[in-house]
Amino acid sequence: MTPWTETTVVGKPLPRVDAYERVSGSAVYAGDVSFPDMLHQAILRCPHAHALVKSVDTHAARTMPGVRAVLADADPEANMLLPYPSWIRNGPPMRLFDPHCRYAGEEVAAVAAETPEQAREALRAIVVQYQELPFVLDATEALKPGATAVHERGNVVRPPEVIQRGDVAKGLQEADAVVEGTYETSCEIHATMETLSSVARWDGDRLTVWESSQGVFDHQEYLAAALGLPLSSVRVICRYMGGGFGSKAELSKHTLIAVLLARKTARPVRSVLTREESFLCAGNRPPHTMTLKAGATKDGVLRAIDLEGVGVVGAYADDATGGFLATQLYACANVRVRETEVFVNAGKARAMRAPGFPQCAWALEQTIDALAEKIGIDPVELRLRNLPTSFQWTPPVPYSSMGLGQCLIEGARAFGWKEARERPRSSGPVLRGVGVAACMWPNPGGPPATAILRLFADGSLNLTTGVSDIGTGAKTVLAMVAGEELGIPLDRIQIEWADTATTPYAQVSGGSRTVINNAPAVRAAAVEIRRQLLEIAAEELKRPPGELVLKDGRVAPVDEPQRALPIPQLKGLQQRKVILAVGSRHPNPPKLGLPFGVHFAEVEVNTRTGEVAVTRFLAVHDSGRVMNRVTYENQVFGGVTMGIGFALTERRVLDRQTGRVLNANLHDYAIPTVLDVPADMTCLPIDPHDTECNTTGTKGLGEPAMVPTAAAVANAVYHATGIRVTRAPITPMQMLGLLAARGRRG
Amino acid sequence: MTPWTETTVVGKPLPRVDAYERVSGSAVYAGDVSFPDMLHQAILRCPHAHALVKSVDTHAARTMPGVRAVLADADPEANMLLPYPSWIRNGPPMRLFDPHCRYAGEEVAAVAAETPEQAREALRAIVVQYQELPFVLDATEALKPGATAVHERGNVVRPPEVIQRGDVAKGLQEADAVVEGTYETSCEIHATMETLSSVARWDGDRLTVWESSQGVFDHQEYLAAALGLPLSSVRVICRYMGGGFGSKAELSKHTLIAVLLARKTARPVRSVLTREESFLCAGNRPPHTMTLKAGATKDGVLRAIDLEGVGVVGAYADDATGGFLATQLYACANVRVRETEVFVNAGKARAMRAPGFPQCAWALEQTIDALAEKIGIDPVELRLRNLPTSFQWTPPVPYSSMGLGQCLIEGARAFGWKEARERPRSSGPVLRGVGVAACMWPNPGGPPATAILRLFADGSLNLTTGVSDIGTGAKTVLAMVAGEELGIPLDRIQIEWADTATTPYAQVSGGSRTVINNAPAVRAAAVEIRRQLLEIAAEELKRPPGELVLKDGRVAPVDEPQRALPIPQLKGLQQRKVILAVGSRHPNPPKLGLPFGVHFAEVEVNTRTGEVAVTRFLAVHDSGRVMNRVTYENQVFGGVTMGIGFALTERRVLDRQTGRVLNANLHDYAIPTVLDVPADMTCLPIDPHDTECNTTGTKGLGEPAMVPTAAAVANAVYHATGIRVTRAPITPMQMLGLLAARGRRG
Repeated sequence: MTPWTETTVVGKPLPRVDAYERVSGSAVYAGDVSFPDMLHQAILRCPHAHALVKSVDTHAARTMPGVRAVLADADPEANMLLPYPSWIRNGPPMRLFDPHCRYAGEEVAAVAAETPEQAREALRAIVVQYQELPFVLDATEALKPGATAVHERGNVVRPPEVIQRGDVAKGLQEADAVVEGTYETSCEIHATMETLSSVARWDGDRLTVWESSQGVFDHQEYLAAALGLPLSSVRVICRYMGGGFGSKAELSKHTLIAVLLARKTARPVRSVLTREESFLCAGNRPPHTMTLKAGATKDGVLRAIDLEGVGVVGAYADDATGGFLATQLYACANVRVRETEVFVNAGKARAMRAPGFPQCAWALEQTIDALAEKIGIDPVELRLRNLPTSFQWTPPVPYSSMGLGQCLIEGARAFGWKEARERPRSSGPVLRGVGVAACMWPNPGGPPATAILRLFADGSLNLTTGVSDIGTGAKTVLAMVAGEELGIPLDRIQIEWADTATTPYAQVSGGSRTVINNAPAVRAAAVEIRRQLLEIAAEELKRPPGELVLKDGRVAPVDEPQRALPIPQLKGLQQRKVILAVGSRHPNPPKLGLPFGVHFAEVEVNTRTGEVAVTRFLAVHDSGRVMNRVTYENQVFGGVTMGIGFALTERRVLDRQTGRVLNANLHDYAIPTVLDVPADMTCLPIDPHDTECNTTGTKGLGEPAMVPTAAAVANAVYHATGIRVTRAPITPMQMLGLLAARGRRG
Repeated sequence: MTPWTETTVVGKPLPRVDAYERVSGSAVYAGDVSFPDMLHQAILRCPHAHALVKSVDTHAARTMPGVRAVLADADPEANMLLPYPSWIRNGPPMRLFDPHCRYAGEEVAAVAAETPEQAREALRAIVVQYQELPFVLDATEALKPGATAVHERGNVVRPPEVIQRGDVAKGLQEADAVVEGTYETSCEIHATMETLSSVARWDGDRLTVWESSQGVFDHQEYLAAALGLPLSSVRVICRYMGGGFGSKAELSKHTLIAVLLARKTARPVRSVLTREESFLCAGNRPPHTMTLKAGATKDGVLRAIDLEGVGVVGAYADDATGGFLATQLYACANVRVRETEVFVNAGKARAMRAPGFPQCAWALEQTIDALAEKIGIDPVELRLRNLPTSFQWTPPVPYSSMGLGQCLIEGARAFGWKEARERPRSSGPVLRGVGVAACMWPNPGGPPATAILRLFADGSLNLTTGVSDIGTGAKTVLAMVAGEELGIPLDRIQIEWADTATTPYAQVSGGSRTVINNAPAVRAAAVEIRRQLLEIAAEELKRPPGELVLKDGRVAPVDEPQRALPIPQLKGLQQRKVILAVGSRHPNPPKLGLPFGVHFAEVEVNTRTGEVAVTRFLAVHDSGRVMNRVTYENQVFGGVTMGIGFALTERRVLDRQTGRVLNANLHDYAIPTVLDVPADMTCLPIDPHDTECNTTGTKGLGEPAMVPTAAAVANAVYHATGIRVTRAPITPMQMLGLLAARGRRG
């Protein structure tokens, strides 16, 4: 099966199938699930960045009004070991309530009470004696000999990760121009609109958890492992959710606590974290420091990229590498990436939209910008001279399509790049500049992914998928695929999703692979539905199935359209009542279909206030086929917005005196609002008509959409000011300081 | 695929998989479904047996505390036509609120309010002006010329149904002995433990209904038709339910009202009928009058059966025939069954456990008893001389198995029939007797029926079926089938069921076909799971799948058991995460697999009080393979108990003065308690090892289990007293009168 050559539904700018539920408030999020006998949970958290819990006195709390259970150090579960997600190897032990608290916010005890207020009130009655310890908050300190050890094993998470090909030293020698810089990014918070939420309920030995979850099957695995239950005894359901960005790809401790309190009380328990709690313990994008050296010949051929990075995982193990982008974005024979991950006394990192990639783009794409200037080549042109021809692995893997060049060329034209580079860069105290940055994303998707379709006797359809729609519109796109294949309008397609007990397996919605995994599965199921339908119709129309076509809900002989039978009139279907078909994602093809993208930014730097305003933005993406123009733009504009936050405003601030997060709220932690993004933000899809990546011709989009944004902004700032800002975010304070140092303050 | 020859799980007396939920109270019944913003419904019912609604004033009700909506004659939906279930043809119009009320209990208006109390209170504030009409309560009156017409078309539901073969007149002439009698049965109420209940909730244009439902897909069809919605927009869910017996096979009006009130208020609405309402409008077993003439030769060969029947449907159309049993139970060349169905001003009939069959058995099996006596042959022997050799149709259909003879022979031996017939029949004022009656049931099951199995990576299993478990243990039996095939213990099998949005199609749980339809579907899915699992294992064990066996959760080469790999260690399964397989019920084979059964009853008739006590009971059934000895006995003992109620105590009493039901409660309507059934109640399964009926070798049981009970009791009463009681139930009052008339009162 090859991708469609023409489509009538796929590609259309259709509104989301669940738009009504989402805007009317009828959508049930995990925190909306309610039972008459439900209890509410509150969690006591360590206020110290590093401390030993000497005693926990819960006596008073247990007798508080409405309190039904307290879970604390004395409970047998307190010491239980928590599983790491499958992609984290060899992390130090994580316990439910570790008497050694490693960050301000770590869980110490929990209460279930009749009301949320009673639960929170009871927390105050729990008396904990802590022995405070010295703490360490940044990587440099943590790596110093004799530094405070976050874990017994020390502060280095594991031996440095090294990716290497060719000979970097030799490459640098061969280069005519070499640039070097150290780039830093800050700790960014996922700040999902919906905080972490769950409801846990037991029926005997069987557990159901309603969870704001990017991957119900992963969460089912986690809970089964943690509790020693068969997978069949754990049901995880995610109906609606308000954003994940990676923070809900793994199960959070508060849910496990709710599960334990529900078992203890034999009543359902709801846990909804406060905004502050979400900032402390729902994960974050780890801060990175990358020292990058790159060299090219005078005609712009990259000869070497050398990256030395340090990523900060926080108090427990996670992935804090990010250099992979530097090994793949450009053709380069000599590359070395070496990264060290470090523990500190702060909340743990978690995968966040394109983990590591925006950090690496921040370093790499500013380095390329600097190199272009040094050689005297336009940055777009330098990138065009180093396009990768394959995935640079051993052996190299050919791409099924690779639209980076087209993104650069068509993007530059659409943005008016040449003109903008030459336009005068200042108007009074305001300096204007444009910048460009590119990206790729290494996930081609792949099995397992399965979908079930059921065609009802009236020609309406049910689509069942294990996918969590994390806000991207995955459900809408999957329904469109079925609609495309079967000619059924979306309002006659009902979707069931993300329930381990009733839906087929799907991987975590993450890695920009939700559509590329599951759309082919849906398509395969739809093709099978059509096959069975035509077989039924063949009997009634007395023609072989191969001579029949299904169009607009009718089956007709290809040469006798006037004999068309509407689906509900097929007697064989009336007898069977439902046609059920299962479709699965095919194995990956030998060629790799990966997405690429280029962002063009225009900024104004106010030299009096230090404020940087992004005034114009173009995001050009080769993500293969556009499945739905509306959800495509939503993804891209959402990514760019997040990227602008990463570039200009977002940063978790830790108090050097106490180690506590100082801005654990949406007032002090500034995510961009609609006023912070340019009105002139556009998106240009590049479709290479990839016929080999998968059966729908589409590639990932969610993550690439934010990878190069911040670097493009920084390059535009450089273009405007001549100042290379190496530390993200570019706050007015930092900008003013840099302007002042260069004597450019307005 | 042929049925198993040996089994290790199927057939075991295993407890129900949902026993914990059912006894702990954690099972969620439709009336337990709760939403924080849910409203409660109450329905105003016509107090008159026959009346015209002249006006409905709802103004005061609308301003009562907590009232959120009133639905009455002025609403556009009031006049809407309601669909009949598919098996009722050509019924007169049924409207939501018909201004012509045809029975005491018919719906007139409804209220949705914040609490059930407020809703009921508001009903009192609705002022209805009725014009009372003359009414008719019984068939004889209704059929008289000039009788009050329940419907414009008159009181005859449709032209009499006639089933005929051979020449009855000629057959009667050829007979050496002819007996004739008129037999009457009373109106019996389903009296399910759980009354009708539902919760309706809209999300935009999509409707979800939690319903105490025997068939969610039928209810989905009903609602889609009534509301003009695509099937995909209607979701019906039945989790637990407390009995149906046919009353929940079709959707009830109160649910549709809840749906409309939920739409009107944009809030979920819960409707739980009171016990009294359930008696009035949840349906009933229609009362029958059957005049039966039968003749046999002196050596006991049946020559003719002639049945003239009248069944009472109540105020709206339903099936009130019952004579079919008389055409099939015995080989007889000359048969005529003619039945008339009649409207009266009383609550409508509904299919009730073996619709028509217990009524017909009451007449037929007493007739056979009388004939045996007249000829002078033992009643068991007479039946043995007339065993059917095929399903008597045109042309005859051979049986795949037919265990009636074996039931009679082995049952008589086990019951001690011969000795009991000869034993002295009296001890003081108490007369003792034994009776026998037989049955068959004409449903072999058949497609469509589909099941989905998902094997998780740890070897635990999910089973998804559209079946409503109406209390019979269907879920348990289906899980056992999967367990049998895959060697997975029941506590590692999780079952999802009866949800039109997430489960595959299943027919209404009724007709004693739930297991015979769906167990083969589950088996087919399990066989496919095993096939895929062995394919995966073949790669890892380097042996073709055909040389591997799956046993106790391990796969091993058949000749190298020591190389067995536990399922969770199969790497291919870990990669795939889940093996999903779909299984469907095969089309019916050319031979018919139908169940048969024989009941033996011993009674004591107290000639002083008229009380009849059933003191010993043996139910012998050929229902093919016993799938689970516990649920098998539950079915049989439940059927016998219901049959004893039908024989001795159960009767809806209508007030001749007002037409109202006088005993619409469980105090005045006497269903048998544990004290009313014999301690010595046993069950003897006869398994003919049917290899052709379906792939599990089992046949229906639910309905045959109650068909012959009452007739066996009546025959025992005759044996004890010499009095043929033709009117059911045999109340003490009736018995005393009959004893007195014969001068046998003690």
